[in-house]
Amino acid sequence: MGRSSLAEDFEKLLNVGIALSSIHDLEKLLDLILKEARRLTRADAGTLYLAKDGQLIFKVSQCQSLTERWGEARMRQMYESFSMPISRESIAGYVALTKDVLNIADVREIRSDASYHYNPSWDERAGYVTRSMLVVPMLNREGNVAGVLQLINAMSDSDDGKAIPFPAKQEKLVSSLASQAVVAIENAELTDDLKQAHLDTIFRLGVAAEYRDRETANHIKRMSQYCALIAENLGWSGEEVDMILRSSLMHDVGKLGIPDSILQKPGRLTPEERHIMEYHTIIGGNIMKGSKAAVVKQSRIVAITHHEKFDGTGYPRGLKGEEIPIAGRITILADVFDALSSKRVYKEALAEDDVLRILREGRGSFFDPKILDIFLDNLEAVRKIQSRYMDREEDFDKFKNLNRLVIEEEEKVKKA
Amino acid sequence: MGRSSLAEDFEKLLNVGIALSSIHDLEKLLDLILKEARRLTRADAGTLYLAKDGQLIFKVSQCQSLTERWGEARMRQMYESFSMPISRESIAGYVALTKDVLNIADVREIRSDASYHYNPSWDERAGYVTRSMLVVPMLNREGNVAGVLQLINAMSDSDDGKAIPFPAKQEKLVSSLASQAVVAIENAELTDDLKQAHLDTIFRLGVAAEYRDRETANHIKRMSQYCALIAENLGWSGEEVDMILRSSLMHDVGKLGIPDSILQKPGRLTPEERHIMEYHTIIGGNIMKGSKAAVVKQSRIVAITHHEKFDGTGYPRGLKGEEIPIAGRITILADVFDALSSKRVYKEALAEDDVLRILREGRGSFFDPKILDIFLDNLEAVRKIQSRYMDREEDFDKFKNLNRLVIEEEEKVKKA
Repeated sequence: MGRSSLAEDFEKLLNVGIALSSIHDLEKLLDLILKEARRLTRADAGTLYLAKDGQLIFKVSQCQSLTERWGEARMRQMYESFSMPISRESIAGYVALTKDVLNIADVREIRSDASYHYNPSWDERAGYVTRSMLVVPMLNREGNVAGVLQLINAMSDSDDGKAIPFPAKQEKLVSSLASQAVVAIENAELTDDLKQAHLDTIFRLGVAAEYRDRETANHIKRMSQYCALIAENLGWSGEEVDMILRSSLMHDVGKLGIPDSILQKPGRLTPEERHIMEYHTIIGGNIMKGSKAAVVKQSRIVAITHHEKFDGTGYPRGLKGEEIPIAGRITILADVFDALSSKRVYKEALAEDDVLRILREGRGSFFDPKILDIFLDNLEAVRKIQSRYMDREEDFDKFKNLNRLVIEEEEKVKKA
Repeated sequence: MGRSSLAEDFEKLLNVGIALSSIHDLEKLLDLILKEARRLTRADAGTLYLAKDGQLIFKVSQCQSLTERWGEARMRQMYESFSMPISRESIAGYVALTKDVLNIADVREIRSDASYHYNPSWDERAGYVTRSMLVVPMLNREGNVAGVLQLINAMSDSDDGKAIPFPAKQEKLVSSLASQAVVAIENAELTDDLKQAHLDTIFRLGVAAEYRDRETANHIKRMSQYCALIAENLGWSGEEVDMILRSSLMHDVGKLGIPDSILQKPGRLTPEERHIMEYHTIIGGNIMKGSKAAVVKQSRIVAITHHEKFDGTGYPRGLKGEEIPIAGRITILADVFDALSSKRVYKEALAEDDVLRILREGRGSFFDPKILDIFLDNLEAVRKIQSRYMDREEDFDKFKNLNRLVIEEEEKVKKA
């Protein structure tokens, strides 16, 4: 971009802005911001920091010459996330503090009485020689610092590997890019917040349903993770995996419509009671019906089909094989596995060997053989999920005595 | 912007792009897009269409000279939303179809054998004279038409009110603006979809809770609308009103933790049963606890405080007056009003006069006088909400016979 006109530069920046605005994944976005800033300035290296609570948090670093020398994998290991105070102790901190652009021709010639200092420790560790630096504050629309873009070693047009100072006109271009970047970052964070808030509510709906059935919140967490694991290994996209993770959380909402006398009956159910119990699938479908939201639509399918067995002997419709939506075939396996392998108020957990034997016995009758095989091929990952969301004794306490629960919770409320 | 350099124009466009990206309200965004496009080109008038399902939908129109003549209010009445096919029948349709930019010096000189035609009916109705037109397709990143920007009558620098043709260089500038606009529109729509999906799940959680209590989904719809009405008239911001609309939907989730034997007992509760029943406030707080999402945090407050009475005789904590969070003081009024004024499985609705008498008797004891007065001052709006979300007979049927519900729902599932 060295010899291009200012109008051309700005036109390119417009397209960069459009590209940035289209990315909603924060990590990918930060990576692209730095890449575009480096391309705009022909910078060999660069680092992007985000500001949070008076600190600068290191987010992404790129270095073309070192990556060529060492490869991507080793480069990634060299960078660890760290944070540093917004203060004169570092060049990036100085820029965040003063909101000034720093355009330094050679960091080794910074005068000792300057207000900022260059810290050579990274160069020494990495065997790199930093010369020129262009460091730009990323200001949001209120004029507050959202981050810092630090560009290192502008390459000369001759491509001789020599670093030259950053031309003065790039200060303005990079500042413009930084302003575009900040809005894109804020938008990506907003999207993320909205998704998290939604997931949070979905989870609470799932918890509420399990509450009545005396199962713990960990049950639905584990179960949805098993579903995601299977989906991943079926080759589903990240978005599809995310979708089943969410929708499976609500598989049992229909239990909210089943009377306590049946749901919590200690002994065997009569055929009529069992019949009513089975309708939790349909009631779940009813609670979820008519939604336009993709996740709620899939939840409805999961709710209605998570008790259909592969051989057609399940309920409510007795669907068979691939007639059963795949989300249902995944959920029944995750649900049965978790029911067998974890403790409930009324039963202990089975040993893993016994659980796996029962699963294998269900191959082709309860379970889709393909999905079962994928699950059994990934037992290491399954065990990690189990231990990550293990139930503690106190998770069961609340089901033992409603009055005690109530008093404990009241105490929490009073302290809140 | 007529005499500015191309670099200056592009730099301004960069800032426009940043401004557009910061707006998440679709209506405001479309308005600003058109305004900025008109400012960029010194256009007296303009219209923005969005493309959907093979149609162009009229979204916003602006005309400076007519607005000066007639005022904003009358102008707004002149525009009705309409849609037209993407076809050669209209100039905007032609541009959407061919994706070409049309820069027309004078619409009255369009040759009769041209592929597009000018429809003078708007001019005739409005007493306006359209001369020059710059019509630009809004293309998304995949190159599909997302809409059309139609700019009318470029004003000369002399401000003599005469329309001149649009300079050729503006074709590129407006196309760039259109590309920025499309991303901003897509982002605003994404934000909207995420919010709608979240609201949908919140609503289902609310419905699930009322399900157990044999109340209809309409109860929580009405109640949350009453809360929003009060909040609006308390002078809350749009976002705050939206928040209580959502959070009040979940006020009774704690009922999910109350046994059927108490929740659905036909006669009077014993003191001990009533004590347990009252804990639905705390259980609701428990289901909502630990969330980072603002709406779930407020829901927790609503759940815990929506039975606190203004004189301190409510539960669970017996808070008094302004000790009770305002969200709780609003919710108790909306909840009591709806309970009195609507039918339940076990009771008929009271006449409005009786309901209002009871509310007035609760002034200062049950209800915050200020909030009660606001509610009583807005009875017209209250009645509108009542009739909009009126219960029908069949809404109650499902509570009368679980088995019948189940069969009806099963039929729906089979047809799905």
